[in-house]
Amino acid sequence: MTNNGEPRSISRPALKRLPSYLQFLKALHHDGVQSVSAPIIARALHLNEVQVRKDLASVSTASGRPKTGFSTNDLIRDIAAFLGYDNVNQAVLVGAGHLGQALLSYQGFENYGIQIVAAFDSDPTLIGTQVAGKTVLALDKLEDVCRRMKIRIGIITVPDAAAQEICNRLVEGDVCAIWNFAPVHLQVPQHVLVQNENMAESLALLSEHLANKIQAEGIE
Amino acid sequence: MTNNGEPRSISRPALKRLPSYLQFLKALHHDGVQSVSAPIIARALHLNEVQVRKDLASVSTASGRPKTGFSTNDLIRDIAAFLGYDNVNQAVLVGAGHLGQALLSYQGFENYGIQIVAAFDSDPTLIGTQVAGKTVLALDKLEDVCRRMKIRIGIITVPDAAAQEICNRLVEGDVCAIWNFAPVHLQVPQHVLVQNENMAESLALLSEHLANKIQAEGIE
Repeated sequence: MTNNGEPRSISRPALKRLPSYLQFLKALHHDGVQSVSAPIIARALHLNEVQVRKDLASVSTASGRPKTGFSTNDLIRDIAAFLGYDNVNQAVLVGAGHLGQALLSYQGFENYGIQIVAAFDSDPTLIGTQVAGKTVLALDKLEDVCRRMKIRIGIITVPDAAAQEICNRLVEGDVCAIWNFAPVHLQVPQHVLVQNENMAESLALLSEHLANKIQAEGIE
Repeated sequence: MTNNGEPRSISRPALKRLPSYLQFLKALHHDGVQSVSAPIIARALHLNEVQVRKDLASVSTASGRPKTGFSTNDLIRDIAAFLGYDNVNQAVLVGAGHLGQALLSYQGFENYGIQIVAAFDSDPTLIGTQVAGKTVLALDKLEDVCRRMKIRIGIITVPDAAAQEICNRLVEGDVCAIWNFAPVHLQVPQHVLVQNENMAESLALLSEHLANKIQAEGIE
């Protein structure tokens, strides 16, 4: 579940502390620790205990029990959701050429609850134009928009030569899943998923099926 | 192998007889008959023996041996090739919108030796325009062009509502393999292959992988 629909108020310093809470909680969880108290978190991260309680209360409805503390599981889930790490239903698209425009106009994604929320291009004649109700944005805003909107999925429909650079910039914007239409092998950090869409391979497959069928019919 | 590169001269009546030769030869082959003489073919199809020899000579280099006759296998292969039944490397595209234009402009097909040789649309503003060096043709020429060029593969990139009608017309033009981008279930005769390309499903799959990965990392 993402909480994009219900923004909660949190101070900028608190927001910056959330990833370190998450990292610490995941380490605890990994070690089999099922609950944790605010003083333990505060000590480990060199923070004030009251501050920790306040930070956690602003992002999680998990309430610490007097003796056992907070459930690490619940805190991990709530902080990750707050940070949008689980935003798997929104994507940005880079490259608003024919294929990009076709994908932006495609209605079918909605059936799966997925939305392409922004499109980017480097072509000045495309920037500012509308495609299927979405304004094409300048490429220099890419990382910033991805981070601000907590986008985790990037769609690459740029020419082959530009694909790796765009991929790097998406990763820089915290995108961690790439749908790649450029017929190039993208280099990504280990935590990033890449799904390649090779159009030629798909048509070649049909051609091969047809060839096999013709041969089989000739032999029969 | 197609013989598109080396057209051979054949009369129109002879061309019309070829499918019946092919049908008869396939039936023989199916019954285990490995060779057949011109008189047997002539008798079965109520044709003149000299005419049969002439027809076969114009499409096949297989020479009948004095006693055993022609190899049924060789004749089937050569007649099918002459009729272009084995033309698995050329396709036509119907629907020259964004997706159609993206596919027409796509360079990758050449790596697999496949070519989109013609594009069709019903939109008068598109007909006659050039996309990636190919002229968009009027839809009413579809069946005729497919038959004349012996095209067996059709690519459907039209709006959903038009997909079935276009499919029917491709089949009417002797196309027997369809690459379908419209998210509709096409009804086709049994001999026709359909490969559906569901873009939404593909993006949904990536979204699901991402969701699974996030969940797995939360638990680790």
